[in-house]
Amino acid sequence: MENKKGLMLVISGPAGSGKGTVNNHLLETGDFVYSVSATTRPPRPGEINGKNYHFITREEFEKRIKSGDMLEYTEYCTNLYGTPKKEAEEVLASGKNLILEIEVEGAANVKAKYPDAVLILLLPPSFEIQEQRLRNRGTETEEKILLRLARTKEELKSSDIYDYVVYNHDGRDTEAAEQIMSIVNSERCALKRNPNVAKLYFSKNK
Amino acid sequence: MENKKGLMLVISGPAGSGKGTVNNHLLETGDFVYSVSATTRPPRPGEINGKNYHFITREEFEKRIKSGDMLEYTEYCTNLYGTPKKEAEEVLASGKNLILEIEVEGAANVKAKYPDAVLILLLPPSFEIQEQRLRNRGTETEEKILLRLARTKEELKSSDIYDYVVYNHDGRDTEAAEQIMSIVNSERCALKRNPNVAKLYFSKNK
Repeated sequence: MENKKGLMLVISGPAGSGKGTVNNHLLETGDFVYSVSATTRPPRPGEINGKNYHFITREEFEKRIKSGDMLEYTEYCTNLYGTPKKEAEEVLASGKNLILEIEVEGAANVKAKYPDAVLILLLPPSFEIQEQRLRNRGTETEEKILLRLARTKEELKSSDIYDYVVYNHDGRDTEAAEQIMSIVNSERCALKRNPNVAKLYFSKNK
Repeated sequence: MENKKGLMLVISGPAGSGKGTVNNHLLETGDFVYSVSATTRPPRPGEINGKNYHFITREEFEKRIKSGDMLEYTEYCTNLYGTPKKEAEEVLASGKNLILEIEVEGAANVKAKYPDAVLILLLPPSFEIQEQRLRNRGTETEEKILLRLARTKEELKSSDIYDYVVYNHDGRDTEAAEQIMSIVNSERCALKRNPNVAKLYFSKNK
């Protein structure tokens, strides 16, 4: 029978890729769980501990690295960010798929430790449209927009570490989320995830 | 943008896997075209030339092998069976997916020549259920049923050449066909089929 364990999905996408909306569509299906990162950065107004992040001290974070409880972590602007391992493994064991919303460096770290992880790069249809989307939001300064665009150029240099590229043609609809669900359905019946096909097929006790 | 070329799908499945029904569901979507094999075997009553097979002479078949127009071929019970290459390539170029319904030996030959082909093994949920299905048909002799079951045991020894295994839980519904459509959607956005992601993303002339 098909492999029943959940998949570890890494979803990376630049600003304007509509990552948040796509992830919300996935969560609504009930088959996906979002991995809440741990961080040493202080909470911003409105951020909820345990929902946006697990806000912990640097001392606690370093203790958890040492005890092997960080699946991956990176330091960014003097703060540590990481994925709690125990939570992740509980989700996968329950048969649900785990979404890690992380950037290219973290994605490469996950793949190195979990070769079975599925790495998906979510992109707007083109750089031009990404730029339009960021400007149409009207919520960010020109400087911030240019910074985000420059960062996209930098990150896409490593696009070959991903397994799949999904284009989000319309930031609002469900097409990209459905594409990701197809990837999950497909990966679950990949032969590499279903060893002993013949043995199981002929076995009477399943 | 996503790769627009069709996929070459090899679908193999033992007697009782419901291959015919699944293929019909796929054909109904309009995104798939069935590859009609060429054979030197004489037509059986009711078989239509160009629909069930292209019935050709051994001389013609051998000429087409020599001229490179057989994508793969095998000899079985003194008859030749093969996949016409030109037709196959026209379908793929049109963006439709091509279904080759062939057995394990032919599947391996296709994969060797077309590493991009996607090999799918369609199976009943278990050997026990396969046996039940064959008996419930009530159309075949006991000898023929045992022969088909023995052949399944032989063929599954090579199950590791396939990329995906799809279980057809209910011979009549569309679940297995939908699973195959997920595989196709997923494979089309695999990074290995979409080279130059970054280059295309930043290019203004698409």
